[in-house]
Amino acid sequence: MTVVHGYSPSGNCHKVRLLLEQLGRPYTWIETDSSRGETRTPDFLARNPNGQVPMLELDDGRILVESNAILCFLAAGTPLLPTDPWQHAQTLRWMFFEQYSHEPAIAVARFIRGWTDADSPRRAELPALQVRGHRALAVMEGHLAGDARWFSGAHYGVADIALFAYSAVAPDGGFDLERYPAVRDWLARVRRTPGFIPMPAPAPAHAARLAATD
Amino acid sequence: MTVVHGYSPSGNCHKVRLLLEQLGRPYTWIETDSSRGETRTPDFLARNPNGQVPMLELDDGRILVESNAILCFLAAGTPLLPTDPWQHAQTLRWMFFEQYSHEPAIAVARFIRGWTDADSPRRAELPALQVRGHRALAVMEGHLAGDARWFSGAHYGVADIALFAYSAVAPDGGFDLERYPAVRDWLARVRRTPGFIPMPAPAPAHAARLAATD
Repeated sequence: MTVVHGYSPSGNCHKVRLLLEQLGRPYTWIETDSSRGETRTPDFLARNPNGQVPMLELDDGRILVESNAILCFLAAGTPLLPTDPWQHAQTLRWMFFEQYSHEPAIAVARFIRGWTDADSPRRAELPALQVRGHRALAVMEGHLAGDARWFSGAHYGVADIALFAYSAVAPDGGFDLERYPAVRDWLARVRRTPGFIPMPAPAPAHAARLAATD
Repeated sequence: MTVVHGYSPSGNCHKVRLLLEQLGRPYTWIETDSSRGETRTPDFLARNPNGQVPMLELDDGRILVESNAILCFLAAGTPLLPTDPWQHAQTLRWMFFEQYSHEPAIAVARFIRGWTDADSPRRAELPALQVRGHRALAVMEGHLAGDARWFSGAHYGVADIALFAYSAVAPDGGFDLERYPAVRDWLARVRRTPGFIPMPAPAPAHAARLAATD
């Protein structure tokens, strides 16, 4: 049985769960709370020296890390990863965009607001993250404002899963999606895809911090 | 003819040049100095709304951005991108690692040291970038300290090109590679691959700033 080590309210981890559910592929989920240091134990670091979840563990013990590499590996040979070279390239383009320009702003802002104390010095990072995150959302809006309905080429696929993860919870990071109508329509389209499951809500302590942050 | 819009002393741009040289594929290089705002003009933003180089332009005008997506697209069908599913997954794993954990520390530290004024407030970011960059280099060292000779699976490939770009100039970012002997050996192996070309040196003003930064 495929094993996923992941922290449920992490978008990067939820990507893998969402894909496996949509592929109808059985898996075991081992909850690993990265916010409590569970990815920095000697045992975990022996398997992923970069100390991050999600971590995919195959039947034979082989390990694969990096959420978007896991998505591509699991989706290979399915309609969720295009084989046409140009569509495939566009899929990768948006997945690298997600990890470089989108997640480091939107996911990190959400983490700071929900997983650090109200007096954390990291809260000083929020204004700059706002600028970067809105820039990323505007790039997505521009893509969708034309003919494009998806980020994975002509059809729904792994680039949509990758970008959905933190776009859907961007308000947790302080990003108002009102000004991005095409992004909101796309989020709704993703939620209507077969087998879709939402990301679990954060534990009450984190939800309370998110709600309390201006 | 394939056109690459790129800034020569940018590692992300040099990745594309190095691959094209090693594939023996003809291309035209259009120098685009991102440090002088040439990727933020209306004309450029119309083609890449994310305002970054490298940008690949095909004969028919189609545009592909994101350095590592460009590498995968150009290397498809060549020995530099493995087709074996597991080797391919490992290649992507290291390419996402490069863009998430390596480049944002090592390349950004190099940029701040060489492309901002000595009194820039951004220089306050350098200590944190040092920590992150050394963590990334240590993960690479751990991979190479075992049996692995490359990051693209069993053979040299696009993940090596991606990680070489800023690892080779890590000292520009203030990273002493003395403590990473396996990384240094791997850098030397990359330099011996057929068709290798080094990244052009920065212009004298930037080189002088790099030399002047402690």
